[in-house]
Amino acid sequence: MSLPEDPLLAYLLRLGDDNLIVAHRLSELVSRMPELEEDITVANLSLDHLGQARLLYSYGAEVEGAGRGEDQLAMLRDERDFLNAVLVEQPNGDFGHSMARQLFVDAYQVPLYEALVESADATIAEIAQIGAKEARYHLGHSSAWVIRLGDGTEESHRRMQAGLDALWPFTEDLFAADHVEAQLQQSGVAADLENVHQRWVTTITEVLNQATLTLPVDEYQRGGGRIGVHTKHLGHLLPEMQNLYRTHPGVSW
Amino acid sequence: MSLPEDPLLAYLLRLGDDNLIVAHRLSELVSRMPELEEDITVANLSLDHLGQARLLYSYGAEVEGAGRGEDQLAMLRDERDFLNAVLVEQPNGDFGHSMARQLFVDAYQVPLYEALVESADATIAEIAQIGAKEARYHLGHSSAWVIRLGDGTEESHRRMQAGLDALWPFTEDLFAADHVEAQLQQSGVAADLENVHQRWVTTITEVLNQATLTLPVDEYQRGGGRIGVHTKHLGHLLPEMQNLYRTHPGVSW
Repeated sequence: MSLPEDPLLAYLLRLGDDNLIVAHRLSELVSRMPELEEDITVANLSLDHLGQARLLYSYGAEVEGAGRGEDQLAMLRDERDFLNAVLVEQPNGDFGHSMARQLFVDAYQVPLYEALVESADATIAEIAQIGAKEARYHLGHSSAWVIRLGDGTEESHRRMQAGLDALWPFTEDLFAADHVEAQLQQSGVAADLENVHQRWVTTITEVLNQATLTLPVDEYQRGGGRIGVHTKHLGHLLPEMQNLYRTHPGVSW
Repeated sequence: MSLPEDPLLAYLLRLGDDNLIVAHRLSELVSRMPELEEDITVANLSLDHLGQARLLYSYGAEVEGAGRGEDQLAMLRDERDFLNAVLVEQPNGDFGHSMARQLFVDAYQVPLYEALVESADATIAEIAQIGAKEARYHLGHSSAWVIRLGDGTEESHRRMQAGLDALWPFTEDLFAADHVEAQLQQSGVAADLENVHQRWVTTITEVLNQATLTLPVDEYQRGGGRIGVHTKHLGHLLPEMQNLYRTHPGVSW
């Protein structure tokens, strides 16, 4: 576990890593969607998250001041240094799983970024402005799918519910807060995650109602992502993502 | 083997399938590139090809007039009905392989689309206008990588040359022409593939010279794609691409 000492850097990595890892998962869905138009949409969702990750890493690199750039932050950190919530690293699996993950992420990012638009940190506020607009669009997309599947055939309903149930135990990690958030919230930089959580529950409840789906109740939750403790899936994802940067002789000229 | 009887439909599928399959290969590279900015670039290249595929399939569906739409053409045809050149289905493998494939494809699409801008078929001419602009940008990207790797370290040079040598045997399939092209060329609809081939050789020679790489000389060539005879790699790719459309109950409402 290696949480950066500077809380601002830790915070930026938490936000940036969420975006980088979910961008990776979305890119895996491109050209596997059930419609060509949806392939294009999902590629654009992935691009949005990649763009957010780059902005957050660039600022993180500046804050760190250690000469690492956005690419080093993305490509040279090890699993224990990644601070994304464990939710975003969960694999696509069945389509119901993928869409459950996206709904949970999008319903989190909307209130998060909307709060961060008011951040005392001007750079974060600027990034949040872009992020909020994109997240609202993303949420429209994922809710539409969850409703379409939940309120569809018996089989699609069953599989969508299975996806929600399977991903549910990873959702609380989105809202895990420690001294990093506490300190930054005091100075008006970070979002209040309790508020974000409340808005998240409201959104999820509304969407699932409309989708005739049931809010999962499993009380067991799997956390740890925010301090670098991950599920095995990140361990499989990182080598894929980092391999070219780390091994190809071409990148170091 | 099932080549559509209508040569125009066969021609549109040959062009469309090239784009769909190479879009899939490019999407596999997203979030695996050596720089975040390159992830974004590659996602955009994939989107360009997806867009071209959609335009070509939509027109193909209209020409066919059998009630199949672009999604049916992409998702419900079997391996033997796909008419892409075998080059585009070759897997990414080593980065040198991927970039060799892209250079070969881009250097083909530039003169192809530039010729088709003059097509007697107004719809094809319109699509080619978009395609030509995109292909020139793509060629700039792939040549830059081939030059960077070829004219880089000893190791990157060796691997780039290995990629070119490995992909070379699949290049002639791009220029395979039969009665489909002959007939459509006579009516001014199709491009003259011999001219396209000449321009392709010129481009490849120039790029490889600049990259201090050698034009492969292997005389054995693997064709068949244009009549639905493919390498094993398409057989692995199609189920991934078509699975959701074919099996998910959600898609048929």
